[in-house]
Amino acid sequence: MKKTVAALVLASLAGAVLAQQLKPEEMIKTRKANFTVMAWNMGKIKANLDGNFDKDQVEAAANTVAAVAGSGWSVLFAPGTDKDIGGERTRVKPEFFQQPDKVRELGLNFRKEASELARVAATGDKAAVQAQFGKTGAACKACHDDFRK
Amino acid sequence: MKKTVAALVLASLAGAVLAQQLKPEEMIKTRKANFTVMAWNMGKIKANLDGNFDKDQVEAAANTVAAVAGSGWSVLFAPGTDKDIGGERTRVKPEFFQQPDKVRELGLNFRKEASELARVAATGDKAAVQAQFGKTGAACKACHDDFRK
Repeated sequence: MKKTVAALVLASLAGAVLAQQLKPEEMIKTRKANFTVMAWNMGKIKANLDGNFDKDQVEAAANTVAAVAGSGWSVLFAPGTDKDIGGERTRVKPEFFQQPDKVRELGLNFRKEASELARVAATGDKAAVQAQFGKTGAACKACHDDFRK
Repeated sequence: MKKTVAALVLASLAGAVLAQQLKPEEMIKTRKANFTVMAWNMGKIKANLDGNFDKDQVEAAANTVAAVAGSGWSVLFAPGTDKDIGGERTRVKPEFFQQPDKVRELGLNFRKEASELARVAATGDKAAVQAQFGKTGAACKACHDDFRK
């Protein structure tokens, strides 16, 4: 059987996360919550770039995106989470589970760009935030384009 | 008209967040996502405390809780979000909007404890994480007890 990226990631983890024993529908709910939180914070950064630039707000938002990006949510794409279940809907494409190397590459790139966004946000340099916000958004989009319905 | 904590917080913010112009149901969805993300990460820390302690995973989880706690989500309790709307359900009690000082006190305390949890998690000291995890969980619970149905 071809191993999915989720299975590979799960296998590499300590028992801690597995001990949570989330049901597939809970995993879908939780991963969607992660995306909602990241989107909300990216939206705040965009609003700051388009309007009054509040350094503290941008920094807090960027820290949140980076922290969530680095929180290991790939485990939430475990087997059984590839389709709607238990009232939870998902837009993940089947290809997500068939292209683990590509998923991993896009995921690591997103994490890298988000970390850099947090670093740049701490400087308060609006132009630098603008540039790095673009790269981070592009990293989001790359995965959405390939793997989200 | 008595000002709610949400109104006070909104008034103190730059226009950036307001520019996002989220509908009440989008605010409810987004704040619930914040809670889901925090709960998931608190659960990971608990699983690490109960089982194999993976310092990196605990640190990443604590950083996420702290970042979300500090991301300004009190704006998501704006007027119109006190009851189910647009298909989004909320468990917030009416008292939340009537006791702004209490809400603020509990919110600031939670943020403080979560920041301390992130600081302690970076040291990798399991016993210290255990103690601070307890304080952070108690700070969550204090607000849930008073303001969540």
